[in-house]
This record gives sequence, structure tokens and C-alpha cells, in this order.
Amino acid sequence: MRVLIIGGVAGGMSAATRLRRLDETAEIVVFERGPYVSFANCGLPYHVGGVIAERDALLLQTPESLRSRFALDVRIGTEVTTIDRAAQTVTVREVATGETTTENYDRLILAMGADDRSRLSPAPEGPVVSTLRTVDDVDRIVAALPAGTTDARAVVAGGGFIGLEAVENLVHRGLQVTLVQHGAHPLSGLDIEMAAPLLDTLRAHGVHVRTGATVAEVDATGVTLADGTHIACDLVIDARGVTPATGLARDAGLQIGPAGGIRVDKHQRTSDPHIFAVGDGVEKTDAVTGEPVLVTMAGLANRHGRHIADVIASERTGVDPDAIPPALGTGIIQVFETTAAMTGWSEQRLRAAGLPHRVIHTHPSHHATYYPGAERMSMKLMVDPESDRILGAQIVGGRGVDKRIDVIATAMHAGITASGLSRLELAYAPQFASAKDPVNLIGYAADNLVTGLTAGIQWHELDAALSDGATLIDVRSAEEYAGGGIPGSVNVPLDELRDRLGDLPTGELIVHCQVGQRGHTSARLLAQAGRAVRNLDGGYLTWRDGARMSGQEQR
Amino acid sequence: MRVLIIGGVAGGMSAATRLRRLDETAEIVVFERGPYVSFANCGLPYHVGGVIAERDALLLQTPESLRSRFALDVRIGTEVTTIDRAAQTVTVREVATGETTTENYDRLILAMGADDRSRLSPAPEGPVVSTLRTVDDVDRIVAALPAGTTDARAVVAGGGFIGLEAVENLVHRGLQVTLVQHGAHPLSGLDIEMAAPLLDTLRAHGVHVRTGATVAEVDATGVTLADGTHIACDLVIDARGVTPATGLARDAGLQIGPAGGIRVDKHQRTSDPHIFAVGDGVEKTDAVTGEPVLVTMAGLANRHGRHIADVIASERTGVDPDAIPPALGTGIIQVFETTAAMTGWSEQRLRAAGLPHRVIHTHPSHHATYYPGAERMSMKLMVDPESDRILGAQIVGGRGVDKRIDVIATAMHAGITASGLSRLELAYAPQFASAKDPVNLIGYAADNLVTGLTAGIQWHELDAALSDGATLIDVRSAEEYAGGGIPGSVNVPLDELRDRLGDLPTGELIVHCQVGQRGHTSARLLAQAGRAVRNLDGGYLTWRDGARMSGQEQR
Repeated sequence: MRVLIIGGVAGGMSAATRLRRLDETAEIVVFERGPYVSFANCGLPYHVGGVIAERDALLLQTPESLRSRFALDVRIGTEVTTIDRAAQTVTVREVATGETTTENYDRLILAMGADDRSRLSPAPEGPVVSTLRTVDDVDRIVAALPAGTTDARAVVAGGGFIGLEAVENLVHRGLQVTLVQHGAHPLSGLDIEMAAPLLDTLRAHGVHVRTGATVAEVDATGVTLADGTHIACDLVIDARGVTPATGLARDAGLQIGPAGGIRVDKHQRTSDPHIFAVGDGVEKTDAVTGEPVLVTMAGLANRHGRHIADVIASERTGVDPDAIPPALGTGIIQVFETTAAMTGWSEQRLRAAGLPHRVIHTHPSHHATYYPGAERMSMKLMVDPESDRILGAQIVGGRGVDKRIDVIATAMHAGITASGLSRLELAYAPQFASAKDPVNLIGYAADNLVTGLTAGIQWHELDAALSDGATLIDVRSAEEYAGGGIPGSVNVPLDELRDRLGDLPTGELIVHCQVGQRGHTSARLLAQAGRAVRNLDGGYLTWRDGARMSGQEQR
Repeated sequence: MRVLIIGGVAGGMSAATRLRRLDETAEIVVFERGPYVSFANCGLPYHVGGVIAERDALLLQTPESLRSRFALDVRIGTEVTTIDRAAQTVTVREVATGETTTENYDRLILAMGADDRSRLSPAPEGPVVSTLRTVDDVDRIVAALPAGTTDARAVVAGGGFIGLEAVENLVHRGLQVTLVQHGAHPLSGLDIEMAAPLLDTLRAHGVHVRTGATVAEVDATGVTLADGTHIACDLVIDARGVTPATGLARDAGLQIGPAGGIRVDKHQRTSDPHIFAVGDGVEKTDAVTGEPVLVTMAGLANRHGRHIADVIASERTGVDPDAIPPALGTGIIQVFETTAAMTGWSEQRLRAAGLPHRVIHTHPSHHATYYPGAERMSMKLMVDPESDRILGAQIVGGRGVDKRIDVIATAMHAGITASGLSRLELAYAPQFASAKDPVNLIGYAADNLVTGLTAGIQWHELDAALSDGATLIDVRSAEEYAGGGIPGSVNVPLDELRDRLGDLPTGELIVHCQVGQRGHTSARLLAQAGRAVRNLDGGYLTWRDGARMSGQEQR
């Protein structure tokens, strides 16, 4: 069995090493265009920032170490230029010399990843322009920033995962950084109100954030934005996103899917049964709709690469691997003190697709509030109103965000409903959680909605409801109310509400507190008193984040 | 509807507040023997240590705050002495005056928690003796330790959750602490090899740990152990465990279950349909066997209390609550820098019960090793060999332990198999995890076992296998081997193994590395070369922890 693998990082290398453990006799050849294999992609920005001090820490394996441990034939500096499916051969070009050879295969694995969607062209004498996706990129960026550089300026184009990591690390390095972001806020997978803390953090660290902006061109002294603004800088990081590397597959007549990636079945097999594909170049199956989708996450690439080895070796091992589960798109990023994580679909995506959904916001502390150091997080859950199925989640905060997104991703994978989150038996000690964990609490909120016990209203629905004549009651304390609130609200603290039922105006009531919990108690009290009432979901905090992101004023 | 609740903490108070949100018209009366309701049980030790500086932080609610917000009638300093089920009344005694009254109920909720199993008697002029379960206890202990106390000595009897938290906090306060532990190691829910890092931590912080020891009596200068040893001290914390508070229920003729707690159905209803019970006094249904079991965790009490309210109000709300899921017994504790967590059954418990099980140990880092600050943890998974069902998990380490136990507890709740853990799509960025999370990796290890791809051997099975003639091959590097290893092992580094197959002795081979991963690669290599081979589960680290806990020497 001769197995050729094109691409020597994440997916390709996971396939190679697993296949060796399953089949000592296979001949396994890995072609990698660049000079390095199996490097730590996700660590690259942190070497720029000096967080990962040693460049060698990024280089997890070498062709030599892979040969001695796994008997792999790893050929760096080689590019596969064509696939002849009928002959089961590929043409390999040595990058340095241009020499080509032909290599035959029994099985071929495509793990080329993604290409930049487009590249900003550097200008003569202009700032250094680089992507941040390879070790060479890092070397180029680091070379452009001599040690002790303090007054240098950088523009980062694109506020996705890599762009934000670049921003943080350039600030660490002492640069003045401008983030130029095409959309309304960085990390477009987040809904707008959830991105507010991320923007706060960026600005608190002195980052200039330009939203709704794009870099038009690089010139000798900096960049010019599409609106004509010029930003002087010494370095431009191009992080405007990637597109699946499908050229080789297209040329070979392999099927490309509707999302634009190489189409594969549930075992990562392409339309040619001898050819597998994995990683950022490949379509995944979306966990919410079952439709093909692009998800560019290292975890999926690694696990799917390993799966290909299981499939290729299955005749030998006698083990038939289970189908690959659909992808949730779980992702996480830390930007300075703020962590943002997500899994499944966002509200904006559900709305754009016209899928029915219910939204729940909470603002729990990451551990018991009576124990020092509790950090508040913002949680958001998207739920199918009919089935109570979890469609997505977003969490932004500090410590404990990663834990809650992983628990919810696990629950989604297992088909646990939104209200079912309340039933999870999670570990509690005051350093780690509350007796009812934030995940339990959002499950209770979901339960109150699915059972019809309470009705919610979203921050962006409030204006219309008030225009329709509803009265907004702020049930927080008089002190909290005095500290600022929502325009047009009337203050009736929860603890006085029972005694003041007669004072309330007729018509629909909307209640709100700081985070939604006292609002819920108030809503239950009022509903039982026969009032039509809705609770402002996520309370004042969610409304405030949403309102200021959409340019509204607070009281 | 008149609802009486006996016990005003965790379970009782969750029931009371939820019931009010569901039923404004119910008369809800809470009887609490002590002077405080709704206090932070799990925070008590941390006020002793000064970590929670303000005593008020422990007092989450007062009768007044509960009256104004939830219209609850909370009567502190009252004890319910008898239940007349036929009349649906209870006798209530005012603790201060001894006066008794009779109160009728439509529904009664028993939430009295647990009693101390026994109490150490103080000696005249002797050290202060106290449990650590109430605010009064904390006041007593704090009063015994004047500010600035530095040379005081304490004995903590019992190394469970509360005992260990007491130890840590007394050390924080500057005391010399001796832990007297009945069993072979603290935190008896952990298996012996998993407790090794916990013992290391205790000893590194100067705690004297006496295992296999019990306090026989307290005298004027300290305590005497059962073996006659005398330990001088000024303070004795009695943390030797609790037993369900069932006296009132027994006297009323309610059914007590085989585990010794009040028997309840899947809706927390006792054998009397008008009486519910919740918390540490009540039996839970074990998630592994479905048998009645005692689990004394605050999270369960809180969630079950809330459930009772749902059941009582169900006629009114029209919502039929789902049955309470069985209990996993998820628990966590931090002791200095070490965190220990568990869910489901331990190996020792499975063995004692004669339940078939397979064990997997791993030692992953809590995040990518190339990113600074990665902390190693020890993970252990108990698996049903037939069904691949997860029976239990234990994790000991530093950061990231809480996340992994919660993910595994969620997976167990959902019925995800051990190998299914490999398929979870968890959040990855280098600060939080590896591209294959520790939970994924232990899932892969489980998969390799359930598919028969590899065979493992446990640390405690090694001696017998070597006696039977197996050869132990240490596949770590020569440097690692020189630094210490397992007696009788031969060093053949993995990277040389393919070339030295001819040098290996005949007969069974056992391979081991540091944590088990290179051992797995070696085992696969040797198995494919036709050798009978097993991989030492968890590698040298698990063996070392197990061996030193059972008194063996290393090479």
C-alpha cells in the first residue's frame, strides 16, 4: 500500500502518524511545499508577540524525527502540481529546482489547507506586508520589528481569529496598532451585542478599531482605506480570510461542493474512492442543518486526518470506523483579558437563513460570587422554539468561558436540549462554579421559556414594544436605577413590587433588572397577578451592549 | 396551598424560592433550627482561612430579605420535632424557649441535610473541638484563633472534602496542621495512585499526614490516636463524615432506603405522597447501577429542591416535570495548587462490587505544550469493556481539571461512550487546550482498546506479569531512562525500536514510556512485527504514583 499525502501540517500529519501505527508495511510519503512540517499554526501569532519566546517551540517535528519515529518519507520543498486519477499518479515539482517527478499511489490524501482569499500588494519602499499563516510569515514579521522597536505602527486588515491574535501580539510587542475590519465588529461569528466586551478590551489596550472599513491599497507610507482615509504604518498584516485550496482537486475533476470546498463523504473520501481530503480545503457537514459548510478549525483537521488513516487501514485492522459527526464550528479566542467562544450558529446567521429560533442571554459569574475573584461572563444560547434543541451558543468573558462552551458543545453533540442543560451534574466548589452552574442556569432559563412559564423580549425588540404602548419597569434597586438605565423606564424595585401592584399602569408591561434574574421573578409575580408581561432578556447589561453597538444612547 | 419546609439552606431554600415564582398564592413557611438561612455552606472553610475575608459574604439571605422578595415566612431558631402524617401537621419547638406549636400542611418538604456520624467529645481545659458545617462552627473556630496566632497547632480528623478544605485554610492561617485520615489516603473517592499528587501537595505545604489512623480521644493537651500516638494541639476539627438526618422521617414512619437515607421517587416524593425530601438526608439513584446511593453534594440538593417546587406547582402551571436524572456524584476540590475531581465510580469501588471494568490513565497538558504555562494533569477513565460505556473518571492536576471533569460528566449524562469522547468538538486555542483536547485523547485511548488495536496492563498488574516471564521495555530516551525508571526494565528507545527488533528477547513484551503515548506507538509496532505485547497504561508516571503509594521502590 503506497499512500501519498499532500500537506504536512495538522490533517496531513495526523493521517500519516496514525496510519503508521495501524500499518507498519505501508509506504507513506508526505509532500510539503514549505520548508517546515507539523508546525504549530495556532502558535504563530504568539511568537510574533514574544509570548512564545523560542521559535523552535513552533516546530513540533522535523522530517528526520518523523522518519526515525514513524518511518515517514517527508519531502519538504515539494509541490504536487497535477493528479492523474486514471493512472493513480501525481506530478511532484521540487520548488527549489523546478524538477518534476511522477509518483504513484494506492491512496492519496489531500491536506493542502486554504489559500489567502486575495493578497494585499506591497508598495515599493512601503511597509512590510505579510499574512500570518506560516513560519516564513512569522520570520518576515519579526525581521520587520527589530528588538526594542517601540514607535512602530501596524495595520491589521481583518478582525477574525488570526487578525485579533495578530493585534494582541503586536500590542504586546509595543506597536501602535490599527485594526481595519470590514464588518460592523470584530469576530463576525459573534452577534453584535456579544462583541461589545471584545471592542472594549481592544480599545482599553489602545488599539484603534475601524469597523465597516477595508484596506484599498498599500502605499509607500502606509495604507489607504476604501473611504480614502490614509493610515501611516510600518507593517501590514493581511488577515482578511482564506478560501479552500481546491485548485489541484478541481483540475483533477474531483467534485467541489456548494460551499466551495472539496466535497467528501462521511469518511473524508472525495468523489474518487482512492482519494481522501481533509482540513480547511474540505467541506464539513453542518451540525444544525446537515448542509455542506466551511469550518476552518485545527481540531477538526487533526481529528479528520486521523479518521482517514482508520478508513485506509480498516481492511487490515478489521475495524470499521463510525462516520464522522457533523461539525459545530466550536471556536475560542483570547484577546487580552477577554475570551470569546462560540459553537453552532449565531443569531444573525439563523435570522439570515430564516430559521426559527429563540434567544437567551445570561450574565453569570464564573464561580460562586461569595468566593473572591468571580468574573462575570455573558452567555447567549440560540434554541429551536419547537423542539428545544440547542442551535448555538456564544460566551464572552474571562475565566471559565472555555469550560462552559465545551460543556455546551458536548451537550449539542449529544442532542441534549436547552432545558436539559439544567440537569447536568457539573462539578461544584466555590473556586470553580456555583451550586447551579452557569450552564445549569441558562438551562433553567430555557426551561421557563419552553414550558411557557415566562415570556421574553430581546434588546432589539424593545423600542418597537415601547412604541406600541408597553411600559418598561426597571425592577432594580433605586441605587442601581439612579446609576443609569434604559430611556423611558419606571423604577419599581422587585422587593416593593407586591405592594405596588395597584400603582402600575394598564397595558403590557416589560420588566428588566441588571441581568434578567430579578426580572424573571418580577415577571412571574406580575403574570400571576393577571398582567401581560415580558422580561427583557439579559437585562440591562445585554440591552446596554446591544444599544451602544448600534449607536443608541443610554439614560 | 400551605407548604412547610424543614431546613433553610440549599435544597429547602431552592424549593421555597422556586415555589414562590410558580405560585404567588401558596403559604410557604420555612423552619430552620439554626440562626441563619441560605448561607454559603461550601464557603465556610474559606472564611476560617481568611480567603473570604468578610463573614457577611457567607450570609446570602436573611429572613427579612426572603420575606420582602419572595414573601416567605422564614422562622429561624425553630425545630420540627414530630410529624403527624394522618393529621398533616408538624410540631414545632422554638429552640430558645422550648415552646411548641402545631402547624398544618398540604405539602411538607424535608430538607434537614445530614448529621455528624459521631462527635469527638472535648476534654476539660483541652483544645477547642468543632465540626465545620455551620456559621456557628466557623465563629467558634475563628474565636479559637486570635489574629496573629502563628504557633498554634491543629488536628483535622477526616480527609474528605471538608477535612481537606479545613487543612488548607488552617495552613493559610499559619497553623501547624496534622491530618488524621482513617483510610490509606485522603479523599477516599480517588483511587490510590490518583491520590499521590494530593499527598505531595499536602506535604509540600508542611501538613503532617497520618494515614490509616483515627482519633481515639481528645484530652487536655491534644488528641490520642487509636495506636496510642499523642498529638499536641490547640484545635481539633472533626470532619469524619456525616450520615443522613433521618430521625424525624423514621419517627413518622416514612420509608428509609437500603443506603440509609430517606427513600424518594424520581420526583423526590417520600413514601407519603404529601411529603417530599431533598438533600443530604435523601437517597439518590446511582447513575452507574440504578441502585439507591448517598451523594452529599450541594449541586444536587439545589437542583432537586427546585424540582420539588415544580412538582408541587405542576397542577397549577400545567407543566409536568421530567423525572430527576440519576446521580453521577460529580465532585471537585482544590487543595493548594492541586485540583482533584471525580465523577461516577472509582476503580476500587468497581472492583469491590465485582463490576467488569477497564481502566485508562493519561497525563496530558491542560493546554498546548508549545504555549507557556502548560500544566500536566493525570486523568483516569473507568470503562465497561463490553459496552464501552463510561463508568467513572478522575482527574488530578492544576488548571483545566474542572473543565475536563465537566465535559466527561456531561458525556456520561448523555450516554456518550468512552471512545465517543474522541469525537467531541471542543474549543481549541493554545491558551485553553490542544487541537486534540485531553478529553479527545483519552477517547482515542479508549477506542484503541475497545477495537482491540492495543492491549494494556495496569501498574498494579506489572509485578505479576514480570514474574511470569514478560520483559519490560522502557522505550523512552536514554536520558530519560538514566533519570530513573521501573526496576527490571530494559531501555530500547522508540526511535531505535524498528532497527532493533532482532535484539529483543522472546516471550511476552511489556512496553512503557513516560505517559503511555510512545508506549502505544511501540506496542503497535511490535504487535505488527508479530510480538505479544502490552502497553503499561499511563506509563512511568502512573506506575510511579501507584508504586510509591503502595510502598514500592523505584529504580
